[in-house]
Amino acid sequence: MAALWQDRTVGLVGLGLIGGSLGLDLQAAGAQVRAWVHRPQTAERALERGLAQQVSTEAAILEGCGLVVLALPLDQLVAPSPELIHALPPQAVVTDVGSVKGPVLAAWRGKPVRFVGSHPMAGTAEAGVEAGQRQLFQGRPWVITPEAHTDPDALEIVQELASAVGSQTRFCTAEAHDRAVALISHLPVLVSAALLEAADRGSIGENQGLARALASSGFADTTRVGGGNPELGTLMCRWNREAVLSALVHYQAGLDALIHAVREEDWTSLKACLQRAQAIRPDFL
Amino acid sequence: MAALWQDRTVGLVGLGLIGGSLGLDLQAAGAQVRAWVHRPQTAERALERGLAQQVSTEAAILEGCGLVVLALPLDQLVAPSPELIHALPPQAVVTDVGSVKGPVLAAWRGKPVRFVGSHPMAGTAEAGVEAGQRQLFQGRPWVITPEAHTDPDALEIVQELASAVGSQTRFCTAEAHDRAVALISHLPVLVSAALLEAADRGSIGENQGLARALASSGFADTTRVGGGNPELGTLMCRWNREAVLSALVHYQAGLDALIHAVREEDWTSLKACLQRAQAIRPDFL
Repeated sequence: MAALWQDRTVGLVGLGLIGGSLGLDLQAAGAQVRAWVHRPQTAERALERGLAQQVSTEAAILEGCGLVVLALPLDQLVAPSPELIHALPPQAVVTDVGSVKGPVLAAWRGKPVRFVGSHPMAGTAEAGVEAGQRQLFQGRPWVITPEAHTDPDALEIVQELASAVGSQTRFCTAEAHDRAVALISHLPVLVSAALLEAADRGSIGENQGLARALASSGFADTTRVGGGNPELGTLMCRWNREAVLSALVHYQAGLDALIHAVREEDWTSLKACLQRAQAIRPDFL
Repeated sequence: MAALWQDRTVGLVGLGLIGGSLGLDLQAAGAQVRAWVHRPQTAERALERGLAQQVSTEAAILEGCGLVVLALPLDQLVAPSPELIHALPPQAVVTDVGSVKGPVLAAWRGKPVRFVGSHPMAGTAEAGVEAGQRQLFQGRPWVITPEAHTDPDALEIVQELASAVGSQTRFCTAEAHDRAVALISHLPVLVSAALLEAADRGSIGENQGLARALASSGFADTTRVGGGNPELGTLMCRWNREAVLSALVHYQAGLDALIHAVREEDWTSLKACLQRAQAIRPDFL
């Protein structure tokens, strides 16, 4: 990693799945990694796991870091605490990993740091200090959402950070990012959660849990994201509400067409809808 | 396989995924397998693959088979051709593998065979003569749907067939089966197809296919069944229409609750819905 920042020292705030994985990969790429965490137990375990060279519950650990990555839950990114603002070195390049970008950029405008919004599109079902793993970001998109006033050097440093862990950087506006993730990430959570609810409601009173016994890989796949972390799902919808509502309108229109075809026994239309769906999918994956 | 039928000879009609897989496993279990297929090329390839000891495009291949499995698409099961009826040995035990049971039972009532409706709950994304594979049914449920007039010996023979390929047999009414599969198999197809449609509609005119570039494992999982075979999805909805419509009513209710919570910014309710979904899923899987 040809570090553009002076001292090759990266500060991480938070050592969950994203922070911990970054810590492992950045150290492997030759960086010094210092992490600020909330709880003493986390600090201890993070050091045991080698997620950073230095881990502390004291904000002072970030002193001298030219680049700080805020690997925090979305609610702490959109409403940063005075303690967090105060802990960041003046003029540090600061980026975040939040899954919604508009409200994060709004929250950090005017703060005394060189902020660049970003979103590494990588994840597993795990969370917490045990979740971090090597090469989580390898080959995955890392979206960066510059604004007109974004410092070009800061932008380049964040791009370098993403490249250092093997991600493919992609630039777009926060608005475009938020619309896209509403469609491919936030809407699927709601669609999938509603399916779990329907399977539960629809099987009330049935004989010996038949639906539960017969559910297999198709049901497992379709309900995976709906059965995920409720806190995370709620934060995504809350902070990307407008784009999620817009995605839901498109979804309802698609669902209505299918319901109408089944109700009216219009099998030609139903088949045409399913053929469209089949044709759409390879474009996305 | 302690064959209850006289001559250990099983007839298969169709050598697609289910028929071909049955042929491989039944031969391994010591049975003689004869298959009737439609096209000469299929017969040739099936013999090359060893899906049955004898394969023919002539109905006469089924003569003398005490047990015949109809491994045919649903539309051919609910409206069996006179040629098919004629080809079945009188008083043979006949079972099917259709994914909807009510209309199949109705179609075979009064036919001059000892019919038992059944549904092996196993599958892959593959179809056709190349799809058959060993141990497809191992550990999977095989639902059998007897009626009041079903021949007890025939029922036992079909149960033995399912056990011979490692399935776990489960008895229920056709109505209960059809309601359960509407919830866990047919509804997910529609839910998932509507998501593909929404992602396509919602990303019209966006910058350089951003949603397509960012879609990853969550989107892939949630849309897998919706991007499947349109013909199969249409047949399932057509022949299980009432149960599918009922499942859609439950689904819409669950979706409406989520939409309402997002629209009204009721994050407590939204989180409660997602917590319910998270709690429901392990019961099914």
